[in-house]
Amino acid sequence: VKVDRADFRDAIRRARSGTSRPDDMVWVAEGAASGSLPDYQLAAWLMAVYIRGLDDGLTVALTRAMAASGGDPARHPGRVDKHSTGGVGDKTTLVVAPLVASFGVPVAKMSGRGLGHTGGTLDKLESIPGFDVHLSRERLAALVQEVGVAVAAQSGELAPADGRLYALRDATATVEALPLIASSIMAKKLAGGAPALVLDVKVGRGAFMPDLESARALARLMVHIGREAGLAARALLTNMDQPLGWAVGNAVEVNEAVDTLRGQGPPDFVELVVAVAQAMLAVAGVNATPEAVRARLDSGRAYDQFQRWIVAQGGRGDAFDGQGHLPLADRRRVVEAPSSARVARVDPIGVGEAALHLGAGRLHKDDRVDPAVGVRVLVKVGQQVDRGDPVAEVYARVDRAAEAAVRRLEAAFGWGEPDRVWPTVLDRLE
Amino acid sequence: VKVDRADFRDAIRRARSGTSRPDDMVWVAEGAASGSLPDYQLAAWLMAVYIRGLDDGLTVALTRAMAASGGDPARHPGRVDKHSTGGVGDKTTLVVAPLVASFGVPVAKMSGRGLGHTGGTLDKLESIPGFDVHLSRERLAALVQEVGVAVAAQSGELAPADGRLYALRDATATVEALPLIASSIMAKKLAGGAPALVLDVKVGRGAFMPDLESARALARLMVHIGREAGLAARALLTNMDQPLGWAVGNAVEVNEAVDTLRGQGPPDFVELVVAVAQAMLAVAGVNATPEAVRARLDSGRAYDQFQRWIVAQGGRGDAFDGQGHLPLADRRRVVEAPSSARVARVDPIGVGEAALHLGAGRLHKDDRVDPAVGVRVLVKVGQQVDRGDPVAEVYARVDRAAEAAVRRLEAAFGWGEPDRVWPTVLDRLE
Repeated sequence: VKVDRADFRDAIRRARSGTSRPDDMVWVAEGAASGSLPDYQLAAWLMAVYIRGLDDGLTVALTRAMAASGGDPARHPGRVDKHSTGGVGDKTTLVVAPLVASFGVPVAKMSGRGLGHTGGTLDKLESIPGFDVHLSRERLAALVQEVGVAVAAQSGELAPADGRLYALRDATATVEALPLIASSIMAKKLAGGAPALVLDVKVGRGAFMPDLESARALARLMVHIGREAGLAARALLTNMDQPLGWAVGNAVEVNEAVDTLRGQGPPDFVELVVAVAQAMLAVAGVNATPEAVRARLDSGRAYDQFQRWIVAQGGRGDAFDGQGHLPLADRRRVVEAPSSARVARVDPIGVGEAALHLGAGRLHKDDRVDPAVGVRVLVKVGQQVDRGDPVAEVYARVDRAAEAAVRRLEAAFGWGEPDRVWPTVLDRLE
Repeated sequence: VKVDRADFRDAIRRARSGTSRPDDMVWVAEGAASGSLPDYQLAAWLMAVYIRGLDDGLTVALTRAMAASGGDPARHPGRVDKHSTGGVGDKTTLVVAPLVASFGVPVAKMSGRGLGHTGGTLDKLESIPGFDVHLSRERLAALVQEVGVAVAAQSGELAPADGRLYALRDATATVEALPLIASSIMAKKLAGGAPALVLDVKVGRGAFMPDLESARALARLMVHIGREAGLAARALLTNMDQPLGWAVGNAVEVNEAVDTLRGQGPPDFVELVVAVAQAMLAVAGVNATPEAVRARLDSGRAYDQFQRWIVAQGGRGDAFDGQGHLPLADRRRVVEAPSSARVARVDPIGVGEAALHLGAGRLHKDDRVDPAVGVRVLVKVGQQVDRGDPVAEVYARVDRAAEAAVRRLEAAFGWGEPDRVWPTVLDRLE
């Protein structure tokens, strides 16, 4: 009776029974981007896909259709891009962007804001007075050509189909499906015209992927999608079972990035930075040993590149003190070890929420971030401490907030034998 | 971070993993009825339930919550109700209502309109000039008390949660899930205050349930829900592998109902009517043998009851001719057997669509129905015919429509050895 009009219920039926066709993926992406498919039909389709899955071929088709939903891919002004699935204390871009650029490989990155317990690269950069993340595509390209590196706020929507589907997934408990996660990330990378890509897939208590197996499956799928779309891609599976490095916040993370660029970073963070930078150089066609990458940190060449970048994007060099540090909030507290013991656990979510409630992050999209507040976790899982040793620091604006952060941090620690002690880099996929 | 506000995504997650709780069913029903849950969340929940199912206890909980979504159950003025899952040529209510009433068991029925290839009881009754289906609840109750039987249009919405969920199911390809079908039907029956219920579950090519096993599972689930809610319920599984009786349309079906009430009905339809009426009497506490029920048809007592009912609801007795028939449209055609053969198949959907396109049914909700058009299929599956024997008749308003109906009917027949010849009543569940 309704034979004439294309009926999306047919595509829903196929998704429901695990018999989708590549054309259905185009239908979904175009319908989501144009608004021709209503929310409720997309929601039903998403749940069907969540439960029944999509095979690799269909996932590639969905990714390409979403990437194309905003028109032709953008011209990417860099030679390599990176993406992290998000973690607590993840200031990696601040270090690897100038580090890779110091090898003559231009790095341009469009980035986003943070929400919830993970911070955003833009918020961290904006804690540098004067730093401007709102660049036109022309200005971004010019900066990359001039100084080799630039990071800007995503302007407009790269893959509008993904934007609509992501909002629906969030509202309908269909976020955590590998084909949907992988296609969402990769559609934006393809739409942004990334010429080569390193994926930093976080694993553990503070990560979207709690276990190694699902993280590896996600990484493998994203690398596969990249390859199918002609994009050189590698993935690292990295430890987010505890915060990355010591600092969690905005200025406090910039300071740690500066320390790292000057050869004095936290060992786990330095290891990650070297691994990510080496992989970025590799996909861009530059072979460099880990030792050579690390030497750039110790030699100060990466730091020089960082300083040129910051100034080029408007950052005021005089905002940094003699150690290259930004000022932090002055209500400080130290969290002490309650007994002599090993550190069994440092819950990244608990640490992230301590920083979040100090004002370092956003509970709601429109919240303002306070650059000067944050925390530092001074110990790592497996480390032996004595009673009274400082294990964390708090930088707050007011005493009450500082006390609340101390209580949150105290609850984030576990003491005794750790269940597991993971290396910083758990696996590499090429 | 969003710990305070009840978050329906938790209920979606439970549905998705097959671990729903009874409270979730109340949440869905109240959220659907009040509008507090958006379409897309309900759509995702429906798809999760479609794929993962609901156990019997949860299905009962959902049914009761939907039944309660419009307030307390209505006071039902009859002692027994019936429900058919819908078929082609299903004029059963027109006969069983007065037949059961002739045993002193009052029958009141709220009914709906037809859509697509199955006709509605109200449309059939309205082909009797003057017959008024728009009765207040008071008038319905008074009529039932006065003449023992009344059929009225459903006024308002009995179970508003079901109304919203049903529309969403239709749009999201989540109609055909047993717990959703059973709860939808039974919620309306419970909300309508049915004191006892007979379910006529159709099986076969023209039915919602194509195979006996799924029809039996649906019937069993509905009887179980009824029992759990304190409602005496029985179910019959009946043949919808070919049209029921001969007539398909409106006045043409009323005429066949009259013939049946006068002891001259099509054998399959008479058998069904006797089985349904006997079951209705049984759940209302009246034991009657099939022979006793059938005798009411032959004696004319059921027909007397029919006539009193029709007149009481405003039907004009002078609209019927000497045989008790309403006039039919005058462009008539006969479909002849193309060769001497057995009837292998009479596709009920094809026959229903022939009548529909003549104007006997609705393609869209707002279409007007033509009472005088329709078809009669004169043969049954398994029957031997000679070349040129009349196998169907068409009653049309205009020649072109008549010719189109002939072509549709020709295509609905199959010739040769039938795959299967089902009895009228395939099973009974008590």
